[in-house]
Amino acid sequence: MTRIRLSLFDTTLRDGQQTQGVQFSADEKTQIAKALDALGVDYIEGGWPGANPTDSAFFETRPQTRATFTAFGMTKRAGRSAANDEVLAGVLNANTPAVCIVGKTHDFHVDTALGITLEENLTNISESIAHLVAEGREALFDAEHFFDGYKANPTYALACLQAAYKAGARWVVLCDTNGGTLPSEIGAITARVIESGIPGDHLGIHTHDDTGNAVAGTLAAVDAGARQIQGTLNGLGERCGNANLVTLVPTLLLKEPYASTFETGVPETALKTLTRTSRMLDDILNRVPQRAAPYVGASAFAHKAGLHASAIVKDPTTYEHIAPEAVGNTRIVPMSNQAGQSNLMQRLSDMGIEAEKGDPALSRILDAVKQRETDGYAYDSAQASFELLARRELDVAPDYFEVERYRVISERRRNARGEIVVESEAVVTVSTRDGSRTSFFKNEHAQDIQDDGPVNALWQALKSDLGPHQSKIEDMRLTDFRVRITQGGTEAVTRVIIDFADNQGRAWATVGVSANIVDAAFEALVDAINWKLLRDDATVK
Amino acid sequence: MTRIRLSLFDTTLRDGQQTQGVQFSADEKTQIAKALDALGVDYIEGGWPGANPTDSAFFETRPQTRATFTAFGMTKRAGRSAANDEVLAGVLNANTPAVCIVGKTHDFHVDTALGITLEENLTNISESIAHLVAEGREALFDAEHFFDGYKANPTYALACLQAAYKAGARWVVLCDTNGGTLPSEIGAITARVIESGIPGDHLGIHTHDDTGNAVAGTLAAVDAGARQIQGTLNGLGERCGNANLVTLVPTLLLKEPYASTFETGVPETALKTLTRTSRMLDDILNRVPQRAAPYVGASAFAHKAGLHASAIVKDPTTYEHIAPEAVGNTRIVPMSNQAGQSNLMQRLSDMGIEAEKGDPALSRILDAVKQRETDGYAYDSAQASFELLARRELDVAPDYFEVERYRVISERRRNARGEIVVESEAVVTVSTRDGSRTSFFKNEHAQDIQDDGPVNALWQALKSDLGPHQSKIEDMRLTDFRVRITQGGTEAVTRVIIDFADNQGRAWATVGVSANIVDAAFEALVDAINWKLLRDDATVK
Repeated sequence: MTRIRLSLFDTTLRDGQQTQGVQFSADEKTQIAKALDALGVDYIEGGWPGANPTDSAFFETRPQTRATFTAFGMTKRAGRSAANDEVLAGVLNANTPAVCIVGKTHDFHVDTALGITLEENLTNISESIAHLVAEGREALFDAEHFFDGYKANPTYALACLQAAYKAGARWVVLCDTNGGTLPSEIGAITARVIESGIPGDHLGIHTHDDTGNAVAGTLAAVDAGARQIQGTLNGLGERCGNANLVTLVPTLLLKEPYASTFETGVPETALKTLTRTSRMLDDILNRVPQRAAPYVGASAFAHKAGLHASAIVKDPTTYEHIAPEAVGNTRIVPMSNQAGQSNLMQRLSDMGIEAEKGDPALSRILDAVKQRETDGYAYDSAQASFELLARRELDVAPDYFEVERYRVISERRRNARGEIVVESEAVVTVSTRDGSRTSFFKNEHAQDIQDDGPVNALWQALKSDLGPHQSKIEDMRLTDFRVRITQGGTEAVTRVIIDFADNQGRAWATVGVSANIVDAAFEALVDAINWKLLRDDATVK
Repeated sequence: MTRIRLSLFDTTLRDGQQTQGVQFSADEKTQIAKALDALGVDYIEGGWPGANPTDSAFFETRPQTRATFTAFGMTKRAGRSAANDEVLAGVLNANTPAVCIVGKTHDFHVDTALGITLEENLTNISESIAHLVAEGREALFDAEHFFDGYKANPTYALACLQAAYKAGARWVVLCDTNGGTLPSEIGAITARVIESGIPGDHLGIHTHDDTGNAVAGTLAAVDAGARQIQGTLNGLGERCGNANLVTLVPTLLLKEPYASTFETGVPETALKTLTRTSRMLDDILNRVPQRAAPYVGASAFAHKAGLHASAIVKDPTTYEHIAPEAVGNTRIVPMSNQAGQSNLMQRLSDMGIEAEKGDPALSRILDAVKQRETDGYAYDSAQASFELLARRELDVAPDYFEVERYRVISERRRNARGEIVVESEAVVTVSTRDGSRTSFFKNEHAQDIQDDGPVNALWQALKSDLGPHQSKIEDMRLTDFRVRITQGGTEAVTRVIIDFADNQGRAWATVGVSANIVDAAFEALVDAINWKLLRDDATVK
């Protein structure tokens, strides 16, 4: 049976950036674009070139992608030609293969927001799209406020779509800009659009979650015949967010009637990385992942009710609509550590530690993880700290060095020339099998040298002299540093997760928790060195 | 025109308690029950009396409510009469006017989970419901796994509903227990149930959010004729949660076709308290409210895109599907480098600063925001820092005090008894109009005293003596602290956003950026004090 191809258009980097509190750097945009490409979306909308310095910088250095890279802009203004509109020119200058421009389709907005005639707006749409096509670009038209416009003046709203379609738009996208249209209306109006002569395979849907129906509205449009879906990772977006692709993709790939009717560019293998992709975005944004998120949330397959948990042990399909592995997630059964033990043995085996089923150390490790997660630790990404914890319970923990004390100072003052300077210094005393040694680091203020703060000072001091182990840690690099205030028991504590790499291609992460951010970071630094020494030291099992 | 009455059944205290990490005390249940009653729901399901000590305690002391108080339980087991089933007896002993019992309707579960015959299960349903009715209770039947059951064996699934309905159940509730049924299926199957002879005004709907469609599935059932809605506050519930009543209620009351077709027990005045009710639950659970929550989220009416913000100023209906006041929420026009002049003027006007369109200071402020966002600052939540930045460009910035220097130390060492202790201390010198003063804070280590780290030490020292301003900052509290590593130009920098509150009900946030986390935090602390002094000082314009 031939399946119908659905096109996935991601706007995390454009509409997603409209989320309150979200401000991607160009580097972060590159990282997200690569993840979207690996997932298998068809279009990546990168932003609005020319609208702000970050977007302009990103388009200059954008990564190569299999997905069609798309720049966003708006229809030309009235009273000038498309070729002479400098905003549109700025968008075209980004040299993307596709360009998506937004235009009005609701007569009220043409009047109130633009203050031009309905006829002028139609001309702006058709001439802008024609200009994109003449410039050799694939053109997409975001029909702003389409559903509200259709309800107010269906003839005019449809005329706007026709203007874009006839001028050569590859996709005409029905946007529920204000997010207030309910799924049943979206389905009915999308069907009318197709009846009016715009084929479904040229029709896209763009919804917002203002009534909690963004996903359902998208599905209703697909049911009616629309074949492009616009959405964002984790449902980022203006106000309540856009349709969540992380929810829609597994629904389309795994659930009937979609799974046997449609196909997308997302391969099954990429679907298995969905949970990781979703959490990666939260990491970049330093957001706490939503535990209850469909498919990818930490609680999405957590069975707390006693009746559910006991049935799950007999047969997981009793209380699961899909298998968690299909989206790279895992089942949690808080009442029974059966599932926990096999999970744990797998993780230990991945680290080269073999444990027998029923080994009492397994329960001790699970208890310790549970206790420490209550205290604020998180081991999902900090695998190296998890390995050290497991080794302690199994009595195969390393014992390379001990920290006797540290002291770190940060200071802001005026120097002799009256300039404000910020400086940090640290002193660390460690003992190894051949004695105790003290190291010192000071970030001396000088022209153009920034002070990297107390954690950096501590790291520089700690790694400068580990005696017999020194040669093995010389190639360690700190690659990322994440800080989150979280709940540890009844108190707020700071959780620090640090990523490291070395010259042998290893990458690892550790976690530390304390009310004192410096002490939390220090715990993660010490874990990282221990893990590195363990890996380099073949004599330690 | 007579509107059709919809019944609202809240299960926050029962299914909502199945949320991972949620464990209500009896007192918290009372507080939530009162809020639900004030909102105007028809039924409050309080829990499962006899299943755990908390639920039993709560039913003994439950508050008086206008809503029908409901106890939850399950159908009697096979091989005994309903009167002799001690689990059912435990539920009846709670003496609630209504009792809702869950029973199987999916043949696979009758076999796999219960291990009884299909006929025995039908008997368990009808005898249990008949027993509740004989005891003078209003009986509700939660048809577990109904949609999956209907798809597997429609005849049997419908027979289960009939068994409950004929035995006297006031409501037969179609439960999508695993959350995997899509809205179109829910609508179609609900219509079949009504065709089979169970009237819509005896039919309820209970959905879960495993595909992000719990709200849409509920609306689909209502469209098909179901007249009772089961859900929870903020969508709490097993796995991904239940249908969110906080989203459904305003949709039913404010949006067409629902608003003119149906009525509920929720008065317009109670709808205006919806945002507060939602946040109250988060407060009880010590959760950070979801900014993007439909209707009640802090971002639900935040207009970040420049094009949106300029239209909103002309007419809020251009980008809002309902008025925020209708649900007790407020409009926000945040500042960011996406914003234009009209956005900025609105923002300034909210702060009591009037600027003329075309004032060159407006461009300077926008440029400064853009530059500082490139450096790593973020102003859309840190409104207080934005105000100070704008005031500097407008030359109406405060000049209350200046920091001459600070120095902060964190130390980990062994004390005289060989215990590891972590301590922080800070010294800050500030100058005010009447001279210079130095303050000191040390977090002395003692039993059960945690060291809160260098930022806390700095804050304690800074706020301990501001000379002539001291009395005005005594009521400042630091309520949240967020840290992220971001790109500032070409270097990684640390951005710290700190939330504050005072005893006059004000809440404000500030931002600081530096490669040194302590210095970034310090900048935010200084901004926060300046903003607070500005608000308390009527003489400063």
